[in-house]
Amino acid sequence: MDERRLEYLIQEKKYVTLKKELEEMNEADVAELLEPLDIHTSLLIFRMLPKDLAVDVFAHFSVEQQRDFIGVVTDKELKDIIDELFFDDMIDIIEEVPANIVKKILLNAKEEERSLINQFLRYPPDSAGSIMTIEYVDLKKTMTVRDALDHIKETGLDKETVYTCYVTDKNRKLEGIVSLRKLVISEEDHTIEDIMDRDVIYVHTNHDQETVAGMFKKYGFLALPVVDKEDRLTGIITIDDIVNVIDQETTEDFQKMAAMSPSEEKYLDANIFNLAKQRVMWLLVLMVSATFTGGIIRKYESVLETVVVLTAFIPMLMDTGGNSGSQSSTLIIRGLALGEIDLEDVGKVMWKEFRISIVVGIVLAIVNFFRIYLFDDVGLTVSLTVSLTLFVTVIIAKVVGGILPMIAKKMKIDPAIMAGPLITTIVDALSLIVYFAIASRMLNL
Amino acid sequence: MDERRLEYLIQEKKYVTLKKELEEMNEADVAELLEPLDIHTSLLIFRMLPKDLAVDVFAHFSVEQQRDFIGVVTDKELKDIIDELFFDDMIDIIEEVPANIVKKILLNAKEEERSLINQFLRYPPDSAGSIMTIEYVDLKKTMTVRDALDHIKETGLDKETVYTCYVTDKNRKLEGIVSLRKLVISEEDHTIEDIMDRDVIYVHTNHDQETVAGMFKKYGFLALPVVDKEDRLTGIITIDDIVNVIDQETTEDFQKMAAMSPSEEKYLDANIFNLAKQRVMWLLVLMVSATFTGGIIRKYESVLETVVVLTAFIPMLMDTGGNSGSQSSTLIIRGLALGEIDLEDVGKVMWKEFRISIVVGIVLAIVNFFRIYLFDDVGLTVSLTVSLTLFVTVIIAKVVGGILPMIAKKMKIDPAIMAGPLITTIVDALSLIVYFAIASRMLNL
Repeated sequence: MDERRLEYLIQEKKYVTLKKELEEMNEADVAELLEPLDIHTSLLIFRMLPKDLAVDVFAHFSVEQQRDFIGVVTDKELKDIIDELFFDDMIDIIEEVPANIVKKILLNAKEEERSLINQFLRYPPDSAGSIMTIEYVDLKKTMTVRDALDHIKETGLDKETVYTCYVTDKNRKLEGIVSLRKLVISEEDHTIEDIMDRDVIYVHTNHDQETVAGMFKKYGFLALPVVDKEDRLTGIITIDDIVNVIDQETTEDFQKMAAMSPSEEKYLDANIFNLAKQRVMWLLVLMVSATFTGGIIRKYESVLETVVVLTAFIPMLMDTGGNSGSQSSTLIIRGLALGEIDLEDVGKVMWKEFRISIVVGIVLAIVNFFRIYLFDDVGLTVSLTVSLTLFVTVIIAKVVGGILPMIAKKMKIDPAIMAGPLITTIVDALSLIVYFAIASRMLNL
Repeated sequence: MDERRLEYLIQEKKYVTLKKELEEMNEADVAELLEPLDIHTSLLIFRMLPKDLAVDVFAHFSVEQQRDFIGVVTDKELKDIIDELFFDDMIDIIEEVPANIVKKILLNAKEEERSLINQFLRYPPDSAGSIMTIEYVDLKKTMTVRDALDHIKETGLDKETVYTCYVTDKNRKLEGIVSLRKLVISEEDHTIEDIMDRDVIYVHTNHDQETVAGMFKKYGFLALPVVDKEDRLTGIITIDDIVNVIDQETTEDFQKMAAMSPSEEKYLDANIFNLAKQRVMWLLVLMVSATFTGGIIRKYESVLETVVVLTAFIPMLMDTGGNSGSQSSTLIIRGLALGEIDLEDVGKVMWKEFRISIVVGIVLAIVNFFRIYLFDDVGLTVSLTVSLTLFVTVIIAKVVGGILPMIAKKMKIDPAIMAGPLITTIVDALSLIVYFAIASRMLNL
């Protein structure tokens, strides 16, 4: 069904057909279809859906839509939604919506769930604890394969995943894992103890979500168990949530690399003062840092007064230097984030950037020389001065751009800070110093 | 086991202990442990491993390690590895290694596999076909649940996933899917036809991998079926491969946004001429574009000759303009990539950026005014000129930075091109025009 068909069915009040067609669709598609409608029409259709589908659709709504919905549904409906939602989805919602809605949700949650919610809300943001869920299949090692399959048959529908099952002792300590694949291919009278995998790879509730994502990438798991300080199993993290984590962490890197404070708010939903705040701090820092560059120019004002044409090449030199440095820092930052580059590679990176910058610098300097000399009518000496500066600038920019992210990492600062904007400011100053030094000598000023 | 223990066990020739300890480890960890060793030691240990584990370890090696290994193993060993590898892993290797090694692999592959390999190599790079695998569970709708479970029991070990099973007719047309969860919780005498899901969401072999990744994110699937032009099931894509696709596509965006041609080569493995080539093209384009900015300065040389101090503020104005524009373009490019911003939002984006830029512009201009006026000793008029230019520059930069990625998308160009470096070059020129226009008026030049 597309938007047009939906509109038609609503207008013609063909609700039976509408219901039937919606039931056949995937919940993510239904959510997408309802999202642009006004809240009343949307709620009307939502109420037609079978309860299971309705909850799944709700889980696929955007935070804003969920917030609006919670505001208008009855307490009974909210209770149903809360009962059916997976725990991690509920925690996500609670973390995003305003306090009055949190209150409404807590009032409608069961007693034992309320204390669990409070426990989960105390996990640090972006920790394994904050993204895990509690709906996992819990087996005992004395069970037979047949017992285990029966257990899954009974409880499996309410679990986030049944494909990895967790074996715990009576103190909830994690003893092993069994995949459903293993269960299905094993003989029915074997015990779980016989077939379980004891070398379980797990994470702690306070591990950073980025570390957790890295483990999923390395091992190719579908789920990872999360244990508390006493090694008791407290939840699991599934791969579908990790995909979001990867996107979120990358977005954070993009923001930092463009000199912004990271924010999880979606652009179109964020208000302009929050967006302005996110941007203005770094702009101020960089603006004030650029003072230094201005100071260099003022120091060499006499050189510029004598050969004013030198000023005309400042933008090109600054931009090319900044771009060269950004290229290097971007590759290194990304390499560090993906674990392809380690801190001990710092020597290799410097040597590599140095050699690359010589190749790139020579090409740029030659092209630049002929362009200026042939078209700009500024004479041989100025052309040579500018091209030589360009060559040196590219080398400095690439080595600085390659090295600063690694120094940041070494100092436990996020390397993403050492990206284009900051590198540009640093390289600007250095390139002007080189420019005036070369110009003074070549032009005998 | 860590590196030190490994070294110790090798030195003391405690191979039995070594073998035993390695067998208990996860294959990804074994691969990581062997990777830094020289090829002979590494091969020696590799040969100790049970065949299944050895192949899994091989699949976790880096491309370089795989290439080196294929160069030294016997034909018999290579044949074993190839027989056991999942098809998509084999295709990945073939796509990366040099021609002589491809030849060695093809010679050791079975007849029917060879023609399949050739078929797979013809799928366009980065298409669904190029990342899919052929090891899926194939069911018929006339089977009972018990038949299906028996079928999985027999063949499941060799399948990439058994958690989603595919129902096809005799012409290999996809008729439905059944999850293993559904099979396990269903009564054993039900037929597959009774319980299968008919509204299958699938992709075509020539769909772009980025589109496929988007579908995984939207629906939260563990696997997606891939069909050919005649709607015949030709393979499946599993979520663990999608995690790589997401990383790869993001890396591509990072590279384009830093004015580089995208490359999949890892930084430390790439040779410097390839890295230089990747970077030099855009640097040349941007360098020549900066000519335009130089031209503006030359046109206003007389203004600068009269008030030389104006030159000192050019770097700060250019940098702040460039940074403001990069912030906006980065957020928009990322929003477009994640599907959070659509083309029809262009009006909203412009209006939002305009309002943000006024807030940010006012803050920057005020701070800048006092900084210059109080510390730089350049007089009120120059301070006002610079601050007013800054204010206008920030507005232009943010609107241009917000709008250009959307125009690119509209013109079917990758929006990632319209990032920092290009925006900076454009904003540089515009900000200088504004600067000289304001300066001429304010200073009566």
